[in-house]
Amino acid sequence: MTVAQTDLANAIRALSMDAVEAANSGHPGMPMGMADVATVLFRDFLKFDPADPKWPDRDRFVLSAGHGSMLIYSLLYLTGYAQPTIDDVRTFRQFGSPCAGHPENFELPGVECTTGPLGQGLAMAVGMAAAERHLNAVFGDAIVDHRTWVIAGDGCLMEGINHEAVGLAGHLGLGRLNVLWDDNRITIDGPVSLSSSEDIPARYRASGWHVAECDGHDFADIARALAEAAADPRPSLVQCRTIIGKGAPNKQGTSKTHGSALGKDEVAAARENLGWTAAPFEIPDDIRAAWLDFGKRGGQAHGEWQKRLASHSDRAEFERRMAGDVDLEDAAGWAFANWDRVPASVATRKSSEFALEGLTAAMPELVGGSADLTGSNFTKTPSLTSMTPEYYAGRYINYGIREFGMAAAMNGMALHGGIIPFGGTFLVFADYCRPAIRLSAIQQARVIYVMTHDSIGVGEDGPTHQPIEHVMSLRMIPNLEVYRPCDAVEVAECWALALAKKDGPSLLALSRQNLKQLRTGGDMLSAKGGYRLRAATAARQVVLISTGSEMQIAAGVAEALEAQGIGADIVSMPCWSRFEAQEAAYRADTLPPDVLRVSIEAGVTTGWERYTGDGGLRFGIDSFGASGPIDSLYKHFGLTVEAIAPKILAKLQN
Amino acid sequence: MTVAQTDLANAIRALSMDAVEAANSGHPGMPMGMADVATVLFRDFLKFDPADPKWPDRDRFVLSAGHGSMLIYSLLYLTGYAQPTIDDVRTFRQFGSPCAGHPENFELPGVECTTGPLGQGLAMAVGMAAAERHLNAVFGDAIVDHRTWVIAGDGCLMEGINHEAVGLAGHLGLGRLNVLWDDNRITIDGPVSLSSSEDIPARYRASGWHVAECDGHDFADIARALAEAAADPRPSLVQCRTIIGKGAPNKQGTSKTHGSALGKDEVAAARENLGWTAAPFEIPDDIRAAWLDFGKRGGQAHGEWQKRLASHSDRAEFERRMAGDVDLEDAAGWAFANWDRVPASVATRKSSEFALEGLTAAMPELVGGSADLTGSNFTKTPSLTSMTPEYYAGRYINYGIREFGMAAAMNGMALHGGIIPFGGTFLVFADYCRPAIRLSAIQQARVIYVMTHDSIGVGEDGPTHQPIEHVMSLRMIPNLEVYRPCDAVEVAECWALALAKKDGPSLLALSRQNLKQLRTGGDMLSAKGGYRLRAATAARQVVLISTGSEMQIAAGVAEALEAQGIGADIVSMPCWSRFEAQEAAYRADTLPPDVLRVSIEAGVTTGWERYTGDGGLRFGIDSFGASGPIDSLYKHFGLTVEAIAPKILAKLQN
Repeated sequence: MTVAQTDLANAIRALSMDAVEAANSGHPGMPMGMADVATVLFRDFLKFDPADPKWPDRDRFVLSAGHGSMLIYSLLYLTGYAQPTIDDVRTFRQFGSPCAGHPENFELPGVECTTGPLGQGLAMAVGMAAAERHLNAVFGDAIVDHRTWVIAGDGCLMEGINHEAVGLAGHLGLGRLNVLWDDNRITIDGPVSLSSSEDIPARYRASGWHVAECDGHDFADIARALAEAAADPRPSLVQCRTIIGKGAPNKQGTSKTHGSALGKDEVAAARENLGWTAAPFEIPDDIRAAWLDFGKRGGQAHGEWQKRLASHSDRAEFERRMAGDVDLEDAAGWAFANWDRVPASVATRKSSEFALEGLTAAMPELVGGSADLTGSNFTKTPSLTSMTPEYYAGRYINYGIREFGMAAAMNGMALHGGIIPFGGTFLVFADYCRPAIRLSAIQQARVIYVMTHDSIGVGEDGPTHQPIEHVMSLRMIPNLEVYRPCDAVEVAECWALALAKKDGPSLLALSRQNLKQLRTGGDMLSAKGGYRLRAATAARQVVLISTGSEMQIAAGVAEALEAQGIGADIVSMPCWSRFEAQEAAYRADTLPPDVLRVSIEAGVTTGWERYTGDGGLRFGIDSFGASGPIDSLYKHFGLTVEAIAPKILAKLQN
Repeated sequence: MTVAQTDLANAIRALSMDAVEAANSGHPGMPMGMADVATVLFRDFLKFDPADPKWPDRDRFVLSAGHGSMLIYSLLYLTGYAQPTIDDVRTFRQFGSPCAGHPENFELPGVECTTGPLGQGLAMAVGMAAAERHLNAVFGDAIVDHRTWVIAGDGCLMEGINHEAVGLAGHLGLGRLNVLWDDNRITIDGPVSLSSSEDIPARYRASGWHVAECDGHDFADIARALAEAAADPRPSLVQCRTIIGKGAPNKQGTSKTHGSALGKDEVAAARENLGWTAAPFEIPDDIRAAWLDFGKRGGQAHGEWQKRLASHSDRAEFERRMAGDVDLEDAAGWAFANWDRVPASVATRKSSEFALEGLTAAMPELVGGSADLTGSNFTKTPSLTSMTPEYYAGRYINYGIREFGMAAAMNGMALHGGIIPFGGTFLVFADYCRPAIRLSAIQQARVIYVMTHDSIGVGEDGPTHQPIEHVMSLRMIPNLEVYRPCDAVEVAECWALALAKKDGPSLLALSRQNLKQLRTGGDMLSAKGGYRLRAATAARQVVLISTGSEMQIAAGVAEALEAQGIGADIVSMPCWSRFEAQEAAYRADTLPPDVLRVSIEAGVTTGWERYTGDGGLRFGIDSFGASGPIDSLYKHFGLTVEAIAPKILAKLQN
């Protein structure tokens, strides 16, 4: 017995209506509007196996319009994933439910990435598609051969990041990427025409994309368009003409269905309109059986794939890559492999290059890149050649002047697996990437941000290019490790720590200017986040706490104080969050509460109260920077030994 | 005697080479490549009067590719602006020079906006062009009739924000906007083809733009293309095919000219190649005279404009608008005008709407908008109708799902003058706008950000939509006033304060959820940034410091403590930066160091040490949020009276 396609799609509509109604909160319009397209996608095109949501060669499905989360929850439930259960769906948007307001990759294994912040799903999908082509080039068609499918709304296509993502995908020729555009002509505020007059297909074509279109409520037409998209060697945009909230007779086609429950009466009217008589959250057996059947089809392909993998010559390496485990000691060894070539005075961005040289040689999973600042970020090592449509095996992505797109693509690569991405820009442009950095942290994605030119040490480029508030404000993003190493030893340690952290992003803030080495050994002191780099010689009266390039100043201040018989510890604090994770006794020993504690960092002082305490001193910059040679700036902002030491002496004498 | 056009352009090239060489830092490639185009623009098209850089009806010129700052410094000097002098040019990129690494509007009156962070100049120009059309619609052709010209590079056109800006400009039909694209096919990393394969003109056409093109080194062709752009009713992109570093015989056309000094030998070779024999920083008299002559031409138009203004019926209002002064008491009066209609329990986003209703009725210079969240941000009042190409007098911009583009356009409007822009989105998307918020602050631009849904109070939408680190990290941006008002009184006060602050941006963080009124009077207590809202009844043992929606909790905690005979002050701290500006005695009286100080804010606790001191307690959220109804979230994160009061009692008993 064949179940009508409409009934399959209506199962999505019914679950979406019911769940949003039960929660009295959510977005029914998108799932109802895209139910037909999603049905065709999951029935005929998507390669997936609900029995193993992490099957490496599955197609990736990204719901970029994440507010329509009931679409994916419905699909995962209907096709037989272990999660969400129908009870999970019933508790949509309730505290503790894996069916959160927006799809979260850490809640449900079938959710490839966390979406909701518009445009980023599409941009992450570009990274996933690039990862697929790269791994395909390395391991071959037999074990890496899948597509990336995206559902995106008008919001995703209006956001600036989609321009960056589309440009990157077109340039890299990612033909395995297919974006299904929910062209419902409605945004929250009303018709799209309120705010946009763009010919979207023309724009995509301008970036080298193929564009197909279909009636998003005509199953045959949808199937034709998806087949066309799948066949075309270019990345494809499929314009799916849909009616938002399709099925709700009085509200469909309007923004009223977008972001709130339909209401009891309209749900009843919709049920009648759709001919859906099952009780809320109930799916008639035949419809459920048909959906489960689609879910089972992938099992066969999966089984065949497993056979191919079993006999594959690179099986062990493939499995190692996909597992993604990095041993800290191994990584440290590689990061220090070129240690003997590191000059005595060197910028930390340059010592990062030395570390990367060893790491990229040893770790083929490292894929680097820069947002058009390769020669400034020092992100390209001899092991890395550019990735191009002709050479996907390349391990360096020329991201162009697309910081946000780079960051989101890196999220996609990290979530795809098999790759550990790192990418560079100036630290001040962390602001451009910030929404994606936040998503790296939420998604627990191992992405490594190489952010150079990390202070007024930028010099002449002036305030627009000088980070002031950046390091501190990045420290406030949960689950992001922010490292600001002070010399080449710390740089190598921090690289190793970042690589070994499988469940979250790290950001390295690196200096433009040369710095003298303060340490000689590789005993991984940075793992503690903060540590006593030098103990006072005279009786300790001061603890100087600093990071990065200002450790040079701290060292000078300590010297000046010691010369006057005042003992001063120097504490290096490359990573606050790691220091916070240490035991209280260690922290108290490192930063004794009864001694004058002084922070020195070329950024905002707010926040340093945590470590200096009420009676401490904080040296930093609480205004914007200025344009001028580096020495003039450090002098102007009072960040010199000559300016700081007397203030500490005065404080001690009070 | 006519000076050859080439010599005029070579004056720009020579000054640019000389200044970069003297600084041994900077970007000679762009000024040298665009010297011919800029010469035609300033000679034949741009309406400006060096004698009055602030003439309201001048054309706006935006160097979006701000790294090529020597182009604008050369032009301002050559055409006779009082600043920069040739000595200023000689000190290019030195500390204290107005010729900073990137053009800064606060350094030189002839610089319309601060550029350098790529893409934002173009996006600000969209705001300027919208402001011009709006004021034209209000005041007529006689006194408002100018164009906005932009020079943008490939970086600007690759950045995501240009997509948002281009879409907005096309939608609003801003035909007075002309973007001159320096199509030199080179980025820092090498040829553009390394990272992009886009058909840029096709993309612009897809958004309703007109595209012209020219040989950027053929004066007649440039003039033709600019005339075509000026004549076309659509916004225009002029593709100027140029050679980067044109004139430097061995380096032109390569990325070697982009971002560093040419070097002594290449400068000498370029001088020979260009036939330029004058000493460094010297301009031959005839060339200088010709340039000064172009500068003087605008004086006549300016004089005629002044006559028209003098007899204009709306002269006083026009001058008032352009002056931009806002009296705090007036603003407060308007913000409280609808006070009697404000419910006893109301979300601060909704009380913001009440305040705005009075303000927008009284202040025609207020132009609002939202990034497609009008019904959530409550930014549209009865006084505001949408701005469209048919009705530029409209005072509400449907920005679409373009947060960053909105923020940058608002910067442009504020810098244009005559308008005070405000715009809304969810606070969590402050991250999307952050680079533009930073530029508002650097540029001292009065832009008001209406950021609603400011905490886990967002509820079901979950972690991607719940600000955690945002309020604190925004507080760290210098010169940005971050307000988090606790009730309708504070909302009205904060609106008035924001409007009265002429020299910088303000951001209002507003609740989604309803809040009970804590105050009754409009005595502008918020002006102090932090103040004692309620004094302890029993002997004071605790000071509770809070902001926004958590003031409700603080009030409950105080009640619980007082019930046990423990006196507790409640301090509301709507604006940290204003509190910091108070005298030490006031701050110490408000937050006495010898009393247990406790902060309560639904965001990161880092930073609150400043006000709680070492011995204080900090209640907040140092992880990401979660999806669920609001009450379940506050309970989960321990932000309830029941969770907090016992911890304070325990602390007091220690």
